[in-house]
Formats: sequence, structure tokens, C-alpha cells
Amino acid sequence: MSNVRVCVDVVGGDEKPQVVLDGIEAALAADPDIEVLAAGPAEIVNPFAASHARVEALEAPDVIAMDDDPIRAVMTKRKSSIVLSCRAIKKGNADAFFSAGSTGAMTAAATAYVTPFRYQAEGKKQPVRPCLTNALPNRAGGLTVLCDMGANPDVEVDDMVRFAQMGCAYARVVLGIEHPRVGLLANGTEDEKGSNFTKACFPAMKAAVPGFVGNCEGTDITSGNFDVVVADGMSGNIALKATEGAAKFLLQELKGVFMSSLGTKIAALLIKKQMREIKAKLSGDAKGGAILLGLRGVVLIGHGATSVEAVKNGTLAAAEAVRAGLVENVANSMDGIVL
Amino acid sequence: MSNVRVCVDVVGGDEKPQVVLDGIEAALAADPDIEVLAAGPAEIVNPFAASHARVEALEAPDVIAMDDDPIRAVMTKRKSSIVLSCRAIKKGNADAFFSAGSTGAMTAAATAYVTPFRYQAEGKKQPVRPCLTNALPNRAGGLTVLCDMGANPDVEVDDMVRFAQMGCAYARVVLGIEHPRVGLLANGTEDEKGSNFTKACFPAMKAAVPGFVGNCEGTDITSGNFDVVVADGMSGNIALKATEGAAKFLLQELKGVFMSSLGTKIAALLIKKQMREIKAKLSGDAKGGAILLGLRGVVLIGHGATSVEAVKNGTLAAAEAVRAGLVENVANSMDGIVL
Repeated sequence: MSNVRVCVDVVGGDEKPQVVLDGIEAALAADPDIEVLAAGPAEIVNPFAASHARVEALEAPDVIAMDDDPIRAVMTKRKSSIVLSCRAIKKGNADAFFSAGSTGAMTAAATAYVTPFRYQAEGKKQPVRPCLTNALPNRAGGLTVLCDMGANPDVEVDDMVRFAQMGCAYARVVLGIEHPRVGLLANGTEDEKGSNFTKACFPAMKAAVPGFVGNCEGTDITSGNFDVVVADGMSGNIALKATEGAAKFLLQELKGVFMSSLGTKIAALLIKKQMREIKAKLSGDAKGGAILLGLRGVVLIGHGATSVEAVKNGTLAAAEAVRAGLVENVANSMDGIVL
Repeated sequence: MSNVRVCVDVVGGDEKPQVVLDGIEAALAADPDIEVLAAGPAEIVNPFAASHARVEALEAPDVIAMDDDPIRAVMTKRKSSIVLSCRAIKKGNADAFFSAGSTGAMTAAATAYVTPFRYQAEGKKQPVRPCLTNALPNRAGGLTVLCDMGANPDVEVDDMVRFAQMGCAYARVVLGIEHPRVGLLANGTEDEKGSNFTKACFPAMKAAVPGFVGNCEGTDITSGNFDVVVADGMSGNIALKATEGAAKFLLQELKGVFMSSLGTKIAALLIKKQMREIKAKLSGDAKGGAILLGLRGVVLIGHGATSVEAVKNGTLAAAEAVRAGLVENVANSMDGIVL
């Protein structure tokens, strides 16, 4: 099989480009069957490509900053690494794209240039809403898929059914869960719980999603009772960020505890390494980052607070998603997709 | 000033009645100016009242279980502690009610019997939607009010404005925050973020809520950047439970870390006391429990997993809310309330 070619954004995220370059190097060393298209300013990517056998440069003079307005940035910074990388997938110059850059800009550029699948409805082809998806660690020692995590604040019942189907494809292909248990995020697990909207989604999901269990609640993001938690982008984003916030709160409280006396300072030293591991688990980077499902290509978005390890994992995960045929599996998971 | 009379549900929560009785005793000892109306089965409350000077019994033969259907239970178990306690407030036999029982049944009974305030709209008097409110600890070392936490999954823009106004009254009266900073829970802090619904709420809250800052996100439940976070009951419930779930996940991970070697077991011993304190902080019982705002009486709902300390705090907090005039302050916070 030929090499998988992953485009990596050298200027994505909050860290210096050198962190990303080191991450790419680590990924190349870990997987001899990948090539990297390094996207970024010429003075960074050209020397890096020249000194690495399996790297090619994609010159991108513009940089989209983390706080740029996403849609405006994608429309005006046409020669940015994010826009040119998405176009590289479209043109077949890359099989996948990984960036630790702005989620909003990545979503806008990927929707515009990698383009979503279409389905036939009301006599015409309609684009599938891309679904921002990630796997978070749960208390059962596994991972739970959360989708949508924020790409679509307003959705219809049919969108929710497709999110569930795409989330299941992700659970099967990326996590290896053959029969994912699917929950609809609501304000309680009982069938009669929910808003008018989730109550309308319930029977539709029951009819069209094989592993649909019923309603789940906020605790189920991390309970391990569900493999896939389906939500509109508003609820999913709130759940995700509330989880992140609670983790930050607890780790800060623990820091306070550890600094309170000589005895606890010793305790802190004794568990320092494990605390780092828990933090890493909670970063949401277990599978390289959040992925936009429903697109005609693999687009992976890492945490802005990136690291050499995170870039390495993101690059490898992007290649793995290509090899596993994630995009085709996602397309096949939904009814009525037209190419 | 005369004593404050708090009705306490002896059979509310997952623990044995003795835990509640011990909690009442502790509250009576801590505050000489309260009386307690102990609601529950005659064989429990009568001997307790007979042996305690400031306790009277409210005989309630029916018990509403934690997993009873809330509305059906309130309609059929008319002689339950929850229903009779709410009616005791209505009749003026108690100033406040505390229970660690079912949130759903408490909400249903309190709405039916304590009754919400009314406002004038479209030529008639309409009931205010009661708003389930609590204060959660934040990273700035303070407390953040979250409202609504789940009483109303479907609401209108005007309801959200009233939730904000009631949440501010709670922040002022219970937390002593003179000028609360109010956030609208959305999928990002930027003004243009949000769903169609929150986008409609934004200008209405800006016009009618003095301390309105703008949108906030899930992390802001615990960030300390906002004093009051306003959400529909669906989003608020998801945020609350995601926070609780993340805390459970982290504490479990830590337990695993502490058990992994002799060194870490020693570390666990060294910080055991502080870990208990963090857990207590996160229980959401900092101010005695969740309160239903918008009603003509103080109704406080403790965590089902209750304790002597939690019952004591809930009883004292209920009395304190009466003394501080919380109900009147909440009524005055909203426009157009008619009595």
C-alpha cells in the first residue's frame, strides 16, 4: 500500500512552530509509511522539507490566528495554512489534514473546501451538516464519543439522526466498538425526559440508529454507560466545556491541597507523574483531537495548547483514519448519501 | 424577632431517617432561633417531637420514593411528607421547607402547593416558571449561581430574563454579591455565538438585566468569571451533570493513582482530609442545596445522597433565606409581578 500523506499545519495552535516541527519529526519516526505535507510560511516549511526525506512543503504566507473571526478569516486569508491545506485535500495532494489551529476556522474552511457529503431530500441534493466529534475518557476505562461538540448550534431532527449514525461509524472504525450503545443527551435518562426537540429526536433515532438505548444525561459523558452521546452542537459544546471546567477546578483545588504543608508537598512529589498522565487523558487528545465527520476527507483538530506529543498523535491518528477508511464508513453509515 | 419555623422532610433522600433526625438536632443546636416541623411517618416524627423542645410533628403516612414518577406521585400520594410540607408553607404553618427528596417531586409539589408568583401579560395573570437554582464553587474561590438547573426544559425569552433577575436576587441576598456579573450560557463567549434561541435572549437580557455581561460557556460554571450563569433547564441541567460527572471521573482516577504503589498510598494518607473537603465542596451543598426561585415560599432541595451535615446546613440555610427575605427580594427583582 502506498504511503498516507498527511498535511500538517505548522502555525496552528498556541505554541511556536518548532513544537509542531518536532511533532512531525516524531510522527515520521513512529510511522515509516506516512509522508507529511508541511503547511506554513516559506521560511519555516522550505528548510524543514529540504532536510527531511518524507516531507514536502506547502507554502502558506497567511496565518489565521486563534482569535480571528473564523468565517471572515477563511474568506480573506486565502493563502493561509488552514485554507491551502483544506484545498490540498480537495485536489488530492493530501489524504488528511491535522491542525491545532482555531476550531471555528478549521470548520469553516473544511466545510467550504473539503466539502460535506450530500443527501437527496425534497428533490435536491443537500449538504450534510459536519459533526465535530471526539472521544473522551470515561470511568469504565474506555472512551465515549461525543458528537456534535459545537459545529452546529441549531439543528433539525434529521441532522441528529445523522450525527448518531456518524458517531457510530467513528466508534466502530476508530475505537473498534462493534455495537456502540448510543444515548441522546437530555436532562435525565427516563424516556419521558427532554426538551420538545429531543422528544422529537427520540423516535427518529430509535427507528434509524441500531444501537440507540434512549436518553442519557450530562454525567454520561464520562460514566462509561454509553459509547456514543449525541447532542446538538449547543448542548454538546456546553457538556464538553463544563467537563473541561470541572477538571480545571479540581486540579487547581488539588494543587492548593498539595502546597498546604510539608507532608502534602511530599505527597505531590510522589504522585507527580500520574497527575501528568491524568491531565493528558483529560486533554481530549486521546485519539489525536476532534474530527469533523461528514466531510469528504479526514480533518483533525487538536487542542490549541498543543505539544510535540499531541502533534505526533494527531498526525498518526489522521493517517490511521485514512487507512481505516473512516470517510467511506461515515458515508455508508447514513441513508441516502449521493456522491 | 420570632423564631423561624423550618419544615424538614424526615424521609427525603437515600439515607435512613435517623440521619435526617441527627441533622435536625445539629441544626437546632447551632441556631437557637429556629423551630422545626418534622414531616414523616407518625412512628418516627412523634417520638422525635416529644423528646425535643423546638420540634413539632407533621404526620405524613405516604412516602414519595426517589424513583417515583414525580407528577403522578404528587397527585396520588397526597399524604406524603413532600405534599404535606408544601401545603404547610401555603397554610402558614411553616416558613420554609427542606428535603433531600426527589427533585422532580419537590418541584411538582412546590409548584402546585407553594405556588409561583404571577405576572400580568396579555391581559391576564400568568404563573412565573420556578427556576431551580444553586451555587457551585468556582476557581476564583467564590460561588457561581447556576439557574435554571433543570426545572424547565423548554422556555421562552421572557422566562430567561426572569431567571436572570431571580438569579441576581439570589446572588445578592444569599451570597452577598452586590452587583452580580451575569452570563448567558452559550457555545462561546463572543457576542455572535449561540443558538437562535440564545441569540433572541441576548438583547432582552441586555435590556432588562443590570449586570448582564454577555455570553458565557460551559467552563464558566466554574471559572469564576461570572456570578450568575443563566440557562434554559435543559442546558443548565446538562452543564451541572457534566460538571458532576467530570468530578467523579477525576476523583476515581486519583483513587487509582493513590492505590498504585506504596509511595502513592502514603501520599493518599497525607492528603486524605483535604480530599474529603474538596468532595464536600463539589457536592453542591455549599448553600444547603438547590432552591426553587419564583415561589411564594422557601423550598430547598438537598442532594439525595445526604448526611447529618447536609441536613443541618440545609435546615439552617432555609431559615437564613427566610430571615434575609429571599422570597420578597426575588419578587421585587422581576418586572410586573402581581400578588
